[in-house]
Amino acid sequence: MFFEGTEKKFELIAQPTSCSFRSFDQMFWKDIVALAKAEIISVISNEQCDAYLLSESSLFVWDKRVVVITCGLSTLIDSLLALIDRIGVVNVSFVCYQRKNEYLAHLQASTFVDDIARLRQVVPGNACRIGHLDSHHHFIFTTDGCSRPELIEPTSELLMYHISGEFAQYLLSQNQSKEQIIHWLQLDIFFPGFLYDCHLFSPLGFSVNGIKGDRYFTIHITPQEQSSYVSVETNIDLTCNHSDIAANYLAMLKPISWDFIGFNCTLPLVTTPDNICLAHCTYAIGRDTHVNVSHFQQVSSECLSPEIL
Amino acid sequence: MFFEGTEKKFELIAQPTSCSFRSFDQMFWKDIVALAKAEIISVISNEQCDAYLLSESSLFVWDKRVVVITCGLSTLIDSLLALIDRIGVVNVSFVCYQRKNEYLAHLQASTFVDDIARLRQVVPGNACRIGHLDSHHHFIFTTDGCSRPELIEPTSELLMYHISGEFAQYLLSQNQSKEQIIHWLQLDIFFPGFLYDCHLFSPLGFSVNGIKGDRYFTIHITPQEQSSYVSVETNIDLTCNHSDIAANYLAMLKPISWDFIGFNCTLPLVTTPDNICLAHCTYAIGRDTHVNVSHFQQVSSECLSPEIL
Repeated sequence: MFFEGTEKKFELIAQPTSCSFRSFDQMFWKDIVALAKAEIISVISNEQCDAYLLSESSLFVWDKRVVVITCGLSTLIDSLLALIDRIGVVNVSFVCYQRKNEYLAHLQASTFVDDIARLRQVVPGNACRIGHLDSHHHFIFTTDGCSRPELIEPTSELLMYHISGEFAQYLLSQNQSKEQIIHWLQLDIFFPGFLYDCHLFSPLGFSVNGIKGDRYFTIHITPQEQSSYVSVETNIDLTCNHSDIAANYLAMLKPISWDFIGFNCTLPLVTTPDNICLAHCTYAIGRDTHVNVSHFQQVSSECLSPEIL
Repeated sequence: MFFEGTEKKFELIAQPTSCSFRSFDQMFWKDIVALAKAEIISVISNEQCDAYLLSESSLFVWDKRVVVITCGLSTLIDSLLALIDRIGVVNVSFVCYQRKNEYLAHLQASTFVDDIARLRQVVPGNACRIGHLDSHHHFIFTTDGCSRPELIEPTSELLMYHISGEFAQYLLSQNQSKEQIIHWLQLDIFFPGFLYDCHLFSPLGFSVNGIKGDRYFTIHITPQEQSSYVSVETNIDLTCNHSDIAANYLAMLKPISWDFIGFNCTLPLVTTPDNICLAHCTYAIGRDTHVNVSHFQQVSSECLSPEIL
C-alpha cells in the first residue's frame, strides 16, 4: 500500500524569440513525459494553456513556459534534458528543477546530485538543499543569471504530510467518487471560474488540474497510510485570497506536518496554539527573485503506531 | 565533510549452557567486526566485560551477552549472522537488531528490510518501524518468545541531532584533544568509577567506551556540520541518577532534535518551554518487555542555511 507521492518538478521558460511550446502536438508531449515514465491521461485547454493530467501528476504548457510535476519513481530529469535539447539551449531563458526528500529515497533511479550533474553539462546553474538531511528538505536548481525577475511568477506550494480526519478516511474508502472529492475540496469556492479536469486512480489517489486564463492550480492526493501526502500548487495567491485556501485545506486534511514553498511570494510564518514553524529559509535565486521555505508541525505529541515489517 | 554517524546495533544473548563469549580471543572478534567493515582500535577489560573501541563505534562482550554498535557504511548484519553461525542457533536465547534512518540511506549496502529477510532465515522474529518514513524512525527486530524478560537489561539511548553551541564548535576545531573532550563530557562526574577508553578520529570524531562491573556506557560524536550526531548509550540509569545525565548532555550539546530510546525503562516525556515531544511510542517485544521511543525538538523556529550543492 505504499506509493511515493513526493514530487519532482521543473519549470522551463523559453526566450521570447523561440517558437511557442503550444505549437508542439500531443504526440510530442507524450514522448517527453514517457521519458519520465509517465503517461498522458487527459488534457484541457483554454486560450493560454494546455493542462495535461499524467499517470504521475501534471504537465502545463503555455506559449513560453512549461511546468511538469511528477511523482512515484519518475525520472523527470530525462524529460527536462530532452525538452532543452529539442528547443535548443540558446532558446532557454530560465530553468528551475526541484526535488524533495522522498519517503523511500533508495528506490529512486537517481539522486538530485546525480540529476544536476547531468543538467549542468547543458545549462550552468546554482543548486542547494534547504532543510536538514534528517528532516523535510528541498533541492532547488536554477539557471544562472535570471536577469528578468518578471519571468518568475509568484507560485505557492502547500505540501501536506500524514493527513488525518474525516476526509483522509474518505480518501481511503471503497466506492469513493471524483464528484465527492471535488465537493470536499470545494473547488468552485476556492478556484471560481476555473476549468478543471480530475482523475481518480486505482486503487487509491486523486489528481486535479485547473486553468483560468494563464492561472493554474493542481492538487495531487496520495492517501495511502504510512506515506500519505497532498500537494496543492498554484500561481494564484494561496493565502491572501478573500478565502484563505491554505488555512482551509490544512483544516480539512489535518496533516501532521506541512511545508510552504513560495517563489517570489512571501508566506505567512503564522504559528497558532495548534502548530509550530520548526524551520524556515529565504533563498535568493537571482536579482529580485527568491524562494521561501517553511516547515510546520502540529504541536500535539503524536502517539506513533509501530509499522509491522 | 559528511560522515554517517547513524548507528546500527545488535544485542545477542546466549543460552546459559553455551560457552562464554569471553572465551573467544581477539582474533575472533577482529574477524567478526571485519565482516561489518570495522576494525578494532583498542580494548579495555574488567572482571565481567571486554569493551572494544572500533573504527566504526563499539563492541562489548560479556560471558553471555554481546552488544555491537557500528556507524558509517558498516554492514553489521553480516557480523550478526556470522556470530549466530559460530555459536550455533540452538545457543541463541535472544537477538535484538536495530537500525535507524540514515542521513544518506541510499549509500547503505542494504536496507533494514533486506537485513531482516536474511536474519529470519536463521531465527524467527518480529520487526517494526517506529516513526514516520519522513521523520526520525527506528527499526527494531527481536526474536520470538523472549520468555525471560529478566534477560533484557534496562538500557537507555539518547540520540542527538544537529548539535550547536560552544562544545559543538570545539568539536570542529583544529588542535582539539581527547583530554579536553573528556573534560567537557564530565565523565568522572556522570560515570564515577568507570574504566574508560577513548579515541579521537581524524579529521573529526570522538568515541569513548566505559565499563564498571557489568555496567557500560558508550558515547560517539560525529561533529561534522550538516550531519552532526551524538549518541549516548548505557545500562545505567540515564535520567534518574542523582545527576541527570540526559538533561546535562542536552544542555551541553544543544541539539535541534533528539530521540530517547529505552529498553525496559520508562523515559520522561518532559516538555519544557524550550522543547516539545513531537512523537512517542511504547512497543511490546515480549512478556514484560517493552521499548519506549520519543522524539523531541527545540521549539524555536530554526533559520535554515541553504547547503550549496
